[in-house]
Amino acid sequence: MSATTGRVRMSPESRREQLLDLGTRLLATRTLDEISIELLAEEAGISRGLLYHYFENLQEFHVAVVRRAVEDIYAITAPRDIGNPLDQLAVSLGAYVDYVSSNYTGYVSLIRAAAGGNEELRAIYQDARAALTDRIFEIAGPDHLAALGVVDSAATRLLVDGWAALVENVTVAWVQDPHGVAREDLLDRLALALPAIVTP
Amino acid sequence: MSATTGRVRMSPESRREQLLDLGTRLLATRTLDEISIELLAEEAGISRGLLYHYFENLQEFHVAVVRRAVEDIYAITAPRDIGNPLDQLAVSLGAYVDYVSSNYTGYVSLIRAAAGGNEELRAIYQDARAALTDRIFEIAGPDHLAALGVVDSAATRLLVDGWAALVENVTVAWVQDPHGVAREDLLDRLALALPAIVTP
Repeated sequence: MSATTGRVRMSPESRREQLLDLGTRLLATRTLDEISIELLAEEAGISRGLLYHYFENLQEFHVAVVRRAVEDIYAITAPRDIGNPLDQLAVSLGAYVDYVSSNYTGYVSLIRAAAGGNEELRAIYQDARAALTDRIFEIAGPDHLAALGVVDSAATRLLVDGWAALVENVTVAWVQDPHGVAREDLLDRLALALPAIVTP
Repeated sequence: MSATTGRVRMSPESRREQLLDLGTRLLATRTLDEISIELLAEEAGISRGLLYHYFENLQEFHVAVVRRAVEDIYAITAPRDIGNPLDQLAVSLGAYVDYVSSNYTGYVSLIRAAAGGNEELRAIYQDARAALTDRIFEIAGPDHLAALGVVDSAATRLLVDGWAALVENVTVAWVQDPHGVAREDLLDRLALALPAIVTP
């Protein structure tokens, strides 16, 4: 591979990936609506024809970019090998908070689009939320849950999803204005809120 | 006033109120987008001309209907004269949960419109959330907050707004599918989550 990667013959797969990387990078500082064919052309010389070779239309490209962003969030918040589940949770929350800080404009536009009228984006968003909730239960593990007095029931999952809504709400507000709350304090408060909510 | 109120001469104020009542009633079972001039005509013989006499356009009517719905929610969740703040909170939450149950379609369309791209509806929604949060602090009162070890700080308000997001999320999910959780149990869990989140 030479340094002039853009000029060597790329596989369709790599080219598609490259377009998605670009879209995800642009999403850090632009809203979804701002990611237009014109912007792609301006930022990376991507022509209308090239985009339409890999994606049916701009909307399909937006959906693929959101799917990629959501996969990124899932990956960076993966649990590390830390003994204490609460510490582990705080570390994952830290990765999420940092992601929102670095990608504020795009992230807010993504959650607004998902919460608003776009059914396809809502489905992607809700799947991601469900996967994150499932992982919370995996992290905690049945023994730890039992020790906390938490029963892994439908009711508990309802509350854990509510906690996820709280985390998103507080994080977006905090990134916009920290209200004098230090990052570590924020993470501790968010992590502690989970057992506080689900423990009967 | 005769029984044929519709035919007697009404003041502009009352006529406007009557239109808003109708809109709010329709919002119980329809989304905002479904409240069209055609539906108003069908449901109550309201002509295009009459609506435009009191509202600049349909969008302005929708905004006024949402403002009315939000005022209704604020009014029905007003604290009663109950000694224990947690019981008081559960009663207010009960009124909110019942409102969402009775007005599910319209309420969900309202929060989606506010969370999505409509800036005017978002402003109304956020003002309402801020007013509800302020009232939480009034209900609890400085003495009670101090007894709980809660400091009324910007950080606390950030978390209380997060709790409001949790309540909305869990309530909408519960109304759609109670997941085997009884109403009283739901109210207790939601009420207890507040001190659990804000107490350091």
